[in-house]
Amino acid sequence: MKKSLVTLALATFCGFAVANSTQSNALVLQTDFSLQDGAVSAMQGVAFGVDREIKLFNLTHEIPPYNIWEASYRLYQTANYWPAGSVFVSVVDPGVGTARKSVVLKTKTGHYFVTPDNGTLTLVAEHFGIDEIREIDEKVNRLAGSEKSYTFHGRDVYAYTGARLASGKITFEQVGKKLENKVETIPYQKAVLENGVLKGNIPILDIQYGNIWTNISDDLLEKSAIKKGDTLCVEINERQEDGAVAVRYSGKLPYKSSFGDVAEGGPLVYLNSLLNVSFALNMDNFSAKHNIGSGANWSVAVKQCNK
Amino acid sequence: MKKSLVTLALATFCGFAVANSTQSNALVLQTDFSLQDGAVSAMQGVAFGVDREIKLFNLTHEIPPYNIWEASYRLYQTANYWPAGSVFVSVVDPGVGTARKSVVLKTKTGHYFVTPDNGTLTLVAEHFGIDEIREIDEKVNRLAGSEKSYTFHGRDVYAYTGARLASGKITFEQVGKKLENKVETIPYQKAVLENGVLKGNIPILDIQYGNIWTNISDDLLEKSAIKKGDTLCVEINERQEDGAVAVRYSGKLPYKSSFGDVAEGGPLVYLNSLLNVSFALNMDNFSAKHNIGSGANWSVAVKQCNK
Amino acid sequence: MKKSLVTLALATFCGFAVANSTQSNALVLQTDFSLQDGAVSAMQGVAFGVDREIKLFNLTHEIPPYNIWEASYRLYQTANYWPAGSVFVSVVDPGVGTARKSVVLKTKTGHYFVTPDNGTLTLVAEHFGIDEIREIDEKVNRLAGSEKSYTFHGRDVYAYTGARLASGKITFEQVGKKLENKVETIPYQKAVLENGVLKGNIPILDIQYGNIWTNISDDLLEKSAIKKGDTLCVEINERQEDGAVAVRYSGKLPYKSSFGDVAEGGPLVYLNSLLNVSFALNMDNFSAKHNIGSGANWSVAVKQCNK
Repeated sequence: MKKSLVTLALATFCGFAVANSTQSNALVLQTDFSLQDGAVSAMQGVAFGVDREIKLFNLTHEIPPYNIWEASYRLYQTANYWPAGSVFVSVVDPGVGTARKSVVLKTKTGHYFVTPDNGTLTLVAEHFGIDEIREIDEKVNRLAGSEKSYTFHGRDVYAYTGARLASGKITFEQVGKKLENKVETIPYQKAVLENGVLKGNIPILDIQYGNIWTNISDDLLEKSAIKKGDTLCVEINERQEDGAVAVRYSGKLPYKSSFGDVAEGGPLVYLNSLLNVSFALNMDNFSAKHNIGSGANWSVAVKQCNK
Repeated sequence: MKKSLVTLALATFCGFAVANSTQSNALVLQTDFSLQDGAVSAMQGVAFGVDREIKLFNLTHEIPPYNIWEASYRLYQTANYWPAGSVFVSVVDPGVGTARKSVVLKTKTGHYFVTPDNGTLTLVAEHFGIDEIREIDEKVNRLAGSEKSYTFHGRDVYAYTGARLASGKITFEQVGKKLENKVETIPYQKAVLENGVLKGNIPILDIQYGNIWTNISDDLLEKSAIKKGDTLCVEINERQEDGAVAVRYSGKLPYKSSFGDVAEGGPLVYLNSLLNVSFALNMDNFSAKHNIGSGANWSVAVKQCNK
Repeated sequence: MKKSLVTLALATFCGFAVANSTQSNALVLQTDFSLQDGAVSAMQGVAFGVDREIKLFNLTHEIPPYNIWEASYRLYQTANYWPAGSVFVSVVDPGVGTARKSVVLKTKTGHYFVTPDNGTLTLVAEHFGIDEIREIDEKVNRLAGSEKSYTFHGRDVYAYTGARLASGKITFEQVGKKLENKVETIPYQKAVLENGVLKGNIPILDIQYGNIWTNISDDLLEKSAIKKGDTLCVEINERQEDGAVAVRYSGKLPYKSSFGDVAEGGPLVYLNSLLNVSFALNMDNFSAKHNIGSGANWSVAVKQCNK
């Protein structure tokens, strides 16, 4: 009896610390600040001040300045590889100081996104689903002493609130009042299969290697009856300012499992790590060689050449 | 009685581990090494070898090579957002191997700075105050086996000593002998208000966005009777090699709360995240457009246009 | 007696947690992905999902794309500054999806290297010695649900297996079957002393500062009877495509302890932080000024000028 009491005390006392530590969630930061100055470090200092056991990571701080679309894409690209409960703070905020809301989105996958609601949530809301959105109540969720500053919500509100949420200092309910289940979105071309032709857009480039990533999934590809080894006719178009569409690339590419399946310098169609249709040159840079960009204005058409 | 003994034992044993963990301080690294090679990782490995629970962060490793002024500025910009007790290691060390002292400065704010005393401490000493300075005793505070190497104090002395201090392996007193309360400083123009004209310098650019940051505080701005909404006459000057001063920019800018208060591309005066007077173009790059730099040679003059 | 039982219980229960935490090993990531997109973050998310107490660090993600030699060099340069038991994941993998083996090398120094066996292990195998190599069994050591993806072994296999090994979720034996003690290697010129002339190659540049690093050790230098203060005759050569060797630099340099021992802009020979013979210009960029590169094609010859 005494032994079990002691054991219980042990389990309760030490067990608490262990459980607490085990349940701490990751705080993942993304900005367009770069790492050249002290802004990201100030955000990290604020998070560390909230909880010295904070699990702090950087997604990227190299989002091109003001590029909300790319911020949205990077969150969508990576969040699913982090456990449910992970908290993402994304600060790409050209409208800082204006009326855009500061929110925390909880997706149906159990991930949290702390960000200005300026389009950044477009892709995670669409792909992971909206469980609940709350507006950050800056009266309580703001670094003490920061009230006079108008221009660094990333540090004073977003990093601070994200750290409090990830470390369990506040519950999701304590973020602030519940909002309607909708977010600001950026319109873009969805992937479709029309008359045997796959159409989609180029959400992003695999910039380091110059590979072209589309939003056409492996499932849609399968519906088109395209098979590994087929030769595919690929067209890449850019919509210009005046609305006219210009062909930027047109070619015949083999659909392969991986780069090593074609000769050095040769083009291929492959499924990238998100299982989306992508174009590359083995050991070379497709984007640079053919001057291909990404974003809402870029579209692709892919079909079997013999159809 | 027995229960309380057990509780005490629990509190002592487990409590020690918990307290220890809670009290571990951040170790924050800054260099001009970049992250392209293995130098920063070697520093991190040494710190991790000192204490596997070390809380390790990077301020920035993109200080322009040999730029001691910018190293000083980044420490000043960020340290206050980290809790007292945090340990900063800064290695921008063109004089490595020469007679400059290796020191740890404790500021009156309770932050520690491990660095060569070569001007890096200019701004933290001035703004946070000197509590005590100690010279690193390399006989005891140096990675074992590193005595033959002359050129990587950053790893063998600074990262090692910083990690030992942050993790509580040594006390501040054990760093080495106490020095006089003064540091090497870089001379620069202080901010002043003269006859209704605010004068100051440009310590740094907000490089990612091209905003111009001055050393003129919100308090000094308030003393000048300038109010939100006023139109300000701004002049930016560069002192040249021969001592002559050239006007690099002259314009009328509205003083606003934030970027969104002016049209896209329009200029503004605003308070940056340090609450200092700054100049920007909304959604554009002031520095690049007007070819403005930063450092001791750059100065500004700001006044109400109608005065 | 009771007290000792309680103490034992405490030591066992709490001690386990403490020991476990103390023994957690570092997981150090290296890739050629850059930090501009989400790839590294996805790897980190997978590692964090394996163990929320994972000790995660980045070596560098700025390896030039496909440069296996440099990946090999960075591992060699830094691993020894990390404690035995540290796990390095290196993903520079132009052959992804082809037949190259996925392995974990344990060196005689007790470090682990998780990587495609494509030459990446050249220098750590040679310098630290091969204790044992195992091939990753992807049937068990692969992120659940990732089987369809062909192109991101870095995330699905390497980061996942590395995290499991570093956190003790699997033993080294559970990585997969034992292989023969040999790895794929990249041929390169070894350092030799011939007739008083030191010959070697330039494995890498100290890119941030433009210093030239050779593979000639301080021990070999000592054997040549060269002493501090001697003036050395240095020749740098490049082997061209057709096999012809062109002289790229020829000069007389003083051998000094550190940069501060020569005038600003002046050249010197010094021992770098790895204690290898290196060339630099004090406060200037040797590589840029004299157009010197690195790799297997670059060689050097160093001797006392009066010999």
